Amino acid sequence: MAEYSRKQEALDYHAFPQPGKLAISVTKPFTTYEELSLAYSPGVAEPVKAIAANPEDAFRYTSKGNLIAVITNGTAVLGLGNTGALASKPVMEGKAVLFKKFADVNVFDIEVDADNPDDFVDTVARIAPTFGGINLEDIAAPHCFEIETRLIEKLDIPVFHDDQHGTAIIVAAGLKNALDLQGKRLEDAVIVCMGAGAAGVASMKLLLEMGAKLDNVFMLDRKGVIHSDRDDLTPQKAEFATKTNLRTVDDAMRNADVFIGLSGPDTVTQDMIRAMPPRPVVFALSNPNPEISPELAMAVRDDLIMATGRSDYPNQINNVLGFPYIFRGALDVRARRINTQMHIAAANALQALAREPVPASVLEAHDQTSMAFGPEYIIPSPFDPRLIDFIPAAVAAAAVETGVARTGYPKHYPQPVTATTGSD
Amino acid sequence: MAEYSRKQEALDYHAFPQPGKLAISVTKPFTTYEELSLAYSPGVAEPVKAIAANPEDAFRYTSKGNLIAVITNGTAVLGLGNTGALASKPVMEGKAVLFKKFADVNVFDIEVDADNPDDFVDTVARIAPTFGGINLEDIAAPHCFEIETRLIEKLDIPVFHDDQHGTAIIVAAGLKNALDLQGKRLEDAVIVCMGAGAAGVASMKLLLEMGAKLDNVFMLDRKGVIHSDRDDLTPQKAEFATKTNLRTVDDAMRNADVFIGLSGPDTVTQDMIRAMPPRPVVFALSNPNPEISPELAMAVRDDLIMATGRSDYPNQINNVLGFPYIFRGALDVRARRINTQMHIAAANALQALAREPVPASVLEAHDQTSMAFGPEYIIPSPFDPRLIDFIPAAVAAAAVETGVARTGYPKHYPQPVTATTGSD
Repeated sequence: MAEYSRKQEALDYHAFPQPGKLAISVTKPFTTYEELSLAYSPGVAEPVKAIAANPEDAFRYTSKGNLIAVITNGTAVLGLGNTGALASKPVMEGKAVLFKKFADVNVFDIEVDADNPDDFVDTVARIAPTFGGINLEDIAAPHCFEIETRLIEKLDIPVFHDDQHGTAIIVAAGLKNALDLQGKRLEDAVIVCMGAGAAGVASMKLLLEMGAKLDNVFMLDRKGVIHSDRDDLTPQKAEFATKTNLRTVDDAMRNADVFIGLSGPDTVTQDMIRAMPPRPVVFALSNPNPEISPELAMAVRDDLIMATGRSDYPNQINNVLGFPYIFRGALDVRARRINTQMHIAAANALQALAREPVPASVLEAHDQTSMAFGPEYIIPSPFDPRLIDFIPAAVAAAAVETGVARTGYPKHYPQPVTATTGSD
Repeated sequence: MAEYSRKQEALDYHAFPQPGKLAISVTKPFTTYEELSLAYSPGVAEPVKAIAANPEDAFRYTSKGNLIAVITNGTAVLGLGNTGALASKPVMEGKAVLFKKFADVNVFDIEVDADNPDDFVDTVARIAPTFGGINLEDIAAPHCFEIETRLIEKLDIPVFHDDQHGTAIIVAAGLKNALDLQGKRLEDAVIVCMGAGAAGVASMKLLLEMGAKLDNVFMLDRKGVIHSDRDDLTPQKAEFATKTNLRTVDDAMRNADVFIGLSGPDTVTQDMIRAMPPRPVVFALSNPNPEISPELAMAVRDDLIMATGRSDYPNQINNVLGFPYIFRGALDVRARRINTQMHIAAANALQALAREPVPASVLEAHDQTSMAFGPEYIIPSPFDPRLIDFIPAAVAAAAVETGVARTGYPKHYPQPVTATTGSD
């Protein structure tokens, strides 16, 4: 990331007029002795007694029901690696900004000084009463898998590792639209995923849940294709070990309808792109520098649909399209967890939204006069104001349907958008 | 607290228009793609790298430097006892409201599900990178002593158990003024403290530091006077075990210049008050129902100075006079801890403020036409706008002087008020 050109501007943004990006605000009137005695002693004893008698009343009398923890141990921060807990704080505060601005979800960012999963899980589980949900963030694989699984088992609030499922949901939404435009189906597509970390594993798992075939999925780690003769695989990678003679990324790309890059910059060549079958889909999601730049890739193919993680190219695969709205929907039905059906519902809603006409405000934000569903617009923009109508409704409906919601479908919500199939 | 008459009002205050009392606000502009790329990826990588290289930069680029955790395990909530972590949340949110409204300190309330000190200490220490300071709250004695001591040793940010030191500081400020008005000195006063919990032990310790004599201090727990022949004492109580024949509260009161009640309601009789020597001071601080009501006590003595924890009597000993401002001062010099000298500085500043003429805004808030230093005004009002000028300055100056500050005395601060002695 050395070439980022706005270093001082980014530092100044964080430093002035006061350090950081978050503050607390008080939501109730508080100027008189009377209000002091309601907000604090003696009045505050009443909600305490109510919650002690009925724990669900915490959603009624405290901020818990609209409060998420964004929690990290700083072991996999952006593309920077293990920066430690403290140095990850600007990222976690940034995530809190996105939650608040896009979906009015309140966030406490919590940086945990705990490298091993036991300590991390214990810490998060013990502070969980504070929150209505937990967004795990920037935790290195493979620990992130174990941590998430154990916390989901322990807690009765949603635990969601965004680097896994958030990414997977946006990838799935964009990919289904891209395949549809290319006249292909997820059920038939050969998919190569470079990168077997949190995002790669979760993305491929979600695609399998949504119709992709395990025999058609080839995952690569640093040593090449993950296949059944390898004896160096984590349990997560082993799930993707197939009987195959393919060994290198070059081998794999020759059959790939889809390439998903969740690895590192400049790892894909023009020759590899050239070798792909007709009408390929390339998601080069390493950020800020993709596996191959759109300029290089498009120079050798004109039948390509491409997406990156960047806002300065078309088709930005950006997690912010998911997590704020997914938690919004989960919180609004007091969901006990965010399950796979809710992931799929979010992906389907996002896919459907990309097919709707784009409002003027979004065109302005992009300095465009027209944007329409097609090869250069397979996924909505992060500033699309309709995201808050589409995604939470879909997630909440799935939560209610699958029995993980504590409430019914919210009365003030719009009708949820149902799944978009390739044929509509 | 059964007789609290505004139960429904208190519940409604917490429930409407939305649950709880806190929200997050975003302090930086965030409406464009440019600002998104500064607040989050890719721009956010710059402060991350800066902090990874120099941890002190966390105070520069994140909210840490003005962010306190108010942390409890819910084992001693108000007068309600062990309500558990979750049910304590309204109180912790209330504390956050006070921090914000009185001293613009941001607070995350954290409710920790951990009854034993080891788990609690581990949890708090692991999440500490998030914060610029830690306010421990409503943790039962004797665990609270061990927990605070261990966290102070482990961490390089202030750790302050408000139920101990906050109470002690306000008691000390009020008591020094009361003794002065009665023509007595802390150095000579015989002091009876009913209650040997967190607040009682810390208050007596601070008074000893400020000049009281151990031989003159008689502490009582549920079994009566703490004396050197008892073999049932915790280490904290044992520090106050004196050679004495006094056994009951009646015995002790006969010699007491000062009675400090930090125990429970209606434990002191009119006969006990009658038996005290001339010009006594009675702080009946059990809340909301004092050890003896001012009506009953004043009915049998006209040479008495009395204080309670209630806002509807004169001389309210209220922790909110301390903690917001003590942390404000500590944060503004990036203090590594809040030491005894800082406690004493806060008490002295508070004592001094009570001797200043009262501004019109405070008179209005109290519906009074005059308030002047005297038996019915020994301590400032919680809504006194000068608290923010007096206390943080005193605390910051003491921090700088005792070498626990990371910065110098803040340039924008007023000159600190120095100690007020009984003779001035």
